[in-house]
Amino acid sequence: MKYRFLTDIKQPKAIKKLTISQLKVLAEEIRHFLLHSVARTGGHLSSNLGTIELTLALHYVFDSPKDPIIWDVGHQAYTHKILTGRMDRFDSLRQADGLSGFLKRSESEHDVFGAGHASTSLSAAFGFAYANQKLGRDSTTIAVIGDGALTGGMAYEALNLIGDQGQRMLIIVNDNEMSIAKNVGALNRSLTNLRTYRGYTGLKQTVQKVTGKGAMTHLANLKTALRHMVLPNSLFESLGAKYFGPVDGHNLDELIPLLRRLKELPGPMVLHTVTIKGKGYTQAESQPEFYHGVGTFVIEEGMTNSAKEDFSAFYGQTLLQMAKDDPRIIAITAAMPSGTGLADFSKELPNQFLDVGIAEENAVTMAAALALQGLRPYVTIYSTFLQRAFDQMLHDVALQNANVVFCIDRSGIVGQDGETHQGVYGTGYLSLIPGLTVFSPKDRHEFKRMLEASRQFQGPLAILYPRDSAIDLNQDETDLLLPERIGQGSRILLVGYGRMVRILHQVKERLPFEVDILNHRLVLPIRHDVLTDMFKDYDHIHVYEEAIYHGSLAEKLKAVHPQIELQTLPMEFIPQGLIPDILEKYGLGPNAITYELTKRYG
Amino acid sequence: MKYRFLTDIKQPKAIKKLTISQLKVLAEEIRHFLLHSVARTGGHLSSNLGTIELTLALHYVFDSPKDPIIWDVGHQAYTHKILTGRMDRFDSLRQADGLSGFLKRSESEHDVFGAGHASTSLSAAFGFAYANQKLGRDSTTIAVIGDGALTGGMAYEALNLIGDQGQRMLIIVNDNEMSIAKNVGALNRSLTNLRTYRGYTGLKQTVQKVTGKGAMTHLANLKTALRHMVLPNSLFESLGAKYFGPVDGHNLDELIPLLRRLKELPGPMVLHTVTIKGKGYTQAESQPEFYHGVGTFVIEEGMTNSAKEDFSAFYGQTLLQMAKDDPRIIAITAAMPSGTGLADFSKELPNQFLDVGIAEENAVTMAAALALQGLRPYVTIYSTFLQRAFDQMLHDVALQNANVVFCIDRSGIVGQDGETHQGVYGTGYLSLIPGLTVFSPKDRHEFKRMLEASRQFQGPLAILYPRDSAIDLNQDETDLLLPERIGQGSRILLVGYGRMVRILHQVKERLPFEVDILNHRLVLPIRHDVLTDMFKDYDHIHVYEEAIYHGSLAEKLKAVHPQIELQTLPMEFIPQGLIPDILEKYGLGPNAITYELTKRYG
Repeated sequence: MKYRFLTDIKQPKAIKKLTISQLKVLAEEIRHFLLHSVARTGGHLSSNLGTIELTLALHYVFDSPKDPIIWDVGHQAYTHKILTGRMDRFDSLRQADGLSGFLKRSESEHDVFGAGHASTSLSAAFGFAYANQKLGRDSTTIAVIGDGALTGGMAYEALNLIGDQGQRMLIIVNDNEMSIAKNVGALNRSLTNLRTYRGYTGLKQTVQKVTGKGAMTHLANLKTALRHMVLPNSLFESLGAKYFGPVDGHNLDELIPLLRRLKELPGPMVLHTVTIKGKGYTQAESQPEFYHGVGTFVIEEGMTNSAKEDFSAFYGQTLLQMAKDDPRIIAITAAMPSGTGLADFSKELPNQFLDVGIAEENAVTMAAALALQGLRPYVTIYSTFLQRAFDQMLHDVALQNANVVFCIDRSGIVGQDGETHQGVYGTGYLSLIPGLTVFSPKDRHEFKRMLEASRQFQGPLAILYPRDSAIDLNQDETDLLLPERIGQGSRILLVGYGRMVRILHQVKERLPFEVDILNHRLVLPIRHDVLTDMFKDYDHIHVYEEAIYHGSLAEKLKAVHPQIELQTLPMEFIPQGLIPDILEKYGLGPNAITYELTKRYG
Repeated sequence: MKYRFLTDIKQPKAIKKLTISQLKVLAEEIRHFLLHSVARTGGHLSSNLGTIELTLALHYVFDSPKDPIIWDVGHQAYTHKILTGRMDRFDSLRQADGLSGFLKRSESEHDVFGAGHASTSLSAAFGFAYANQKLGRDSTTIAVIGDGALTGGMAYEALNLIGDQGQRMLIIVNDNEMSIAKNVGALNRSLTNLRTYRGYTGLKQTVQKVTGKGAMTHLANLKTALRHMVLPNSLFESLGAKYFGPVDGHNLDELIPLLRRLKELPGPMVLHTVTIKGKGYTQAESQPEFYHGVGTFVIEEGMTNSAKEDFSAFYGQTLLQMAKDDPRIIAITAAMPSGTGLADFSKELPNQFLDVGIAEENAVTMAAALALQGLRPYVTIYSTFLQRAFDQMLHDVALQNANVVFCIDRSGIVGQDGETHQGVYGTGYLSLIPGLTVFSPKDRHEFKRMLEASRQFQGPLAILYPRDSAIDLNQDETDLLLPERIGQGSRILLVGYGRMVRILHQVKERLPFEVDILNHRLVLPIRHDVLTDMFKDYDHIHVYEEAIYHGSLAEKLKAVHPQIELQTLPMEFIPQGLIPDILEKYGLGPNAITYELTKRYG
């Protein structure tokens, strides 16, 4: 497809010369480009197809970066990237040294606030609005937040401050009825009510005919008054922000005049836009969660629903089988039923399943209460997102010795999501929690054994597993509370847990000399007594770990067994790339380890 | 005072035999007892004087622990402790092995969920209600949450889940217009509007005359409908809970019949009670924040406003002076202007001061945005509460290398607040954050130098200081980015930072032989190169630290310098007691250290 406008857009000001009719053409060009580009590289598809018109309208009416646009999460900002001169880098999307899938200050002056985790945009927007007011800068701060991210507590904390302080800012609630999965929570119901009230829709159309500024404000007030009489209360108004909408987020004829009017109003404002995730690509519209984050695919065919054999899927299936026999088991997710492998569980055992929204803090403390009442909660959250609930794990679960099982997916390098998502702090923050036991399985068989053991386990337990395919390495049945030694007789011992054990197996096969492997599957507490005995058998002990150095198991071992040598990640943020490439880069891949050991002992 | 009823109350069921008139007498007896008891021992005064009648009414109408009562924070539950058989232990309140100042499952079957940190009660209440429903138990779960704790995001996360799932539970909003300090935020304004609307008050009185159940429900619906027309929206209704109130939380004649009615209704309910912090003790009513947590005092005289010379006060005054010269400086607190020493700052420079409520996550991410816009935010939060914002420090501040200064008060042992509040995880969680620099001053002079250095510091910076009086040890002016060696020539080196340096000075004075002291004031990053050189001068190196072992500086030093010996806190929750006693107990007080070193080298 030859583009009429898109090719010439290098800066957002370039679109300001276009008419609204021309913008509509541009929107379709962007949709075409995004679909074809993401089909080639993989990336976030549904959310980006849903925000094309909204992004165009924002850049058309406002002046980024003077008017900072803050995108929550950042997985809906591809159009923003295109309009701000990054179209020619889309071939490198999410690759090493390539374009980030999220926002990143180092990429563009238009990425004013980096993102990756959800629900931060309103806090950031308050900071920008407050600072710009204090520094006398004439500016409108804009935050774009989805209805999913609005389920996170910090969004509410920020609304509470925003409504109290009253700085001018525009909050776009991008309501697509989804976070990543189908959205949950009472707020969502509230938004749905706002969306569907027919009488109100009629009133909205009346309002949109009005062009005079005074009349608009007057009618906005009238709208508010009328809605109070007939509609569920709006969360936003109860917290002091003016509420406008809902408006069709794909209709530039509605959006642009409305944004122009809002630009003139004082104080905090919420504009409720309704968009369709996956808009314009039939397959994505009908299965937006499936097309949320995609690999490469053929556009005409869509993605194939290949049965994944990764740790997440294996976890979900195993827990489902366990839960069918044990009604005490409750699976908990924070808005990620598919990502965590719990989609089938949620359908087959809805009464043993809780999706709390993007609300990790609530998930953990609520689970503590379930456990204290005799249920068996399995809190299933990615390592990077569980960081949000560190205090709750310590204060509500561990201090009360509650039988909560934390199933911590995406432990270790996660790959293309990059710095914001690497699960490399887990050993560190978990090791600070007194009384927490931490397992990490090397393969499916061991994972299943750990899950079965977890049903009777007394006290809090965490199980760490990586983003990786799951196979079986052996059928070991030895005590899970002890490390597993594989091989015996070499003077060289290689120590690891989780995915690293599989890598060490690969290394062992390639090396021209014998090594033993220690599967340190009970990550915490460390059985130093056992290790001290075992380490006596070896001249050289190497520990490998997908964790930053501070807080790593390797550092902990080194403090007690100074003879060990260790290889961890450095004290840096680990950038995006393919998982195997990142591991090799930091000396943790099979090639790097084999090379180093051969050089040393070969 | 001889008590007519109080002495015989050993279990909550004992009050059920009393008439409401007798309950009123009991309330005054409890008030008398609490005031005299807390005057002798110290403790939380204002919040407990404010909840006497509410607690009586709850235990009168409901059956604890079958109907679990979950107290948010737990610093308002002294009456609950009295009614559940713990009156005779109040002499040991907050002392080692004594009665906890908060809730604790090990203390009583009526303390169904431990507390200490704010905003957890609604998550816990959902867990209890969900579990009891699933297990077929006939029970009403009750949560008591203050308007302060409602500013915390996880309370909202829980409301979102509660409203969506619809389990029966009663949420008492104990609205005293304060968290610890005067409350802030848009929600508070919303509650105030509900409180003060006169027409509504009239309607409420009408409603209270009605006794029939059907009529009550009907009128409750009518109330809701009417309020929607005339009042600001209620947050609770927008999230799907029924709202009742406001009601005078000291009026048993109103409270008890209302609770009896609510006991019959389905689904989640919010009862908005209005109470007076410090009720019944004039001094506390007029200065509730001053009487929030108190030491011993003479009732007739009240507390004396002795000028404190602790680190918090010194911090507040120093930052105030700095901020007067530098409008870029913004002081941020999470609902603790007095505790953090920022009360004067808030009054003198209100335009450079932000109190975000009990909302640490928002505080940190908002500060990142302020810093990126060129301001100089000082986020002032206790070590234990900053745990809530670990992810935000990593993801929003450090990853973007924002110039945020974290002033982390109550680092180390905090004493009588006990397990939930000890600041002993700080070195651990801070050490996981790439690029974060961590200072800890030994005395006032050094603290001031660090604060002055912080103004120009590039990148995120944390300053850790303890709950302690602040004096000057010396007038050192050497490079803050290097450790300070005190003494030179001994073969024994004692290493510490912060308060520990003062303790090591005391040890040095008592020892019959010479020791050198290393003030490791730059806690992170560790200058291993400098230490390696320096440590060559010593035969014995001892590191002392008020941190649990994992994550401690001592563990990190040991991993690189195996010759050191270390003394940290064990991997356990550290119970309440006086700070000096706790330090001695764990081998970190001057007596314990002197004794050990003398035994070893004397």
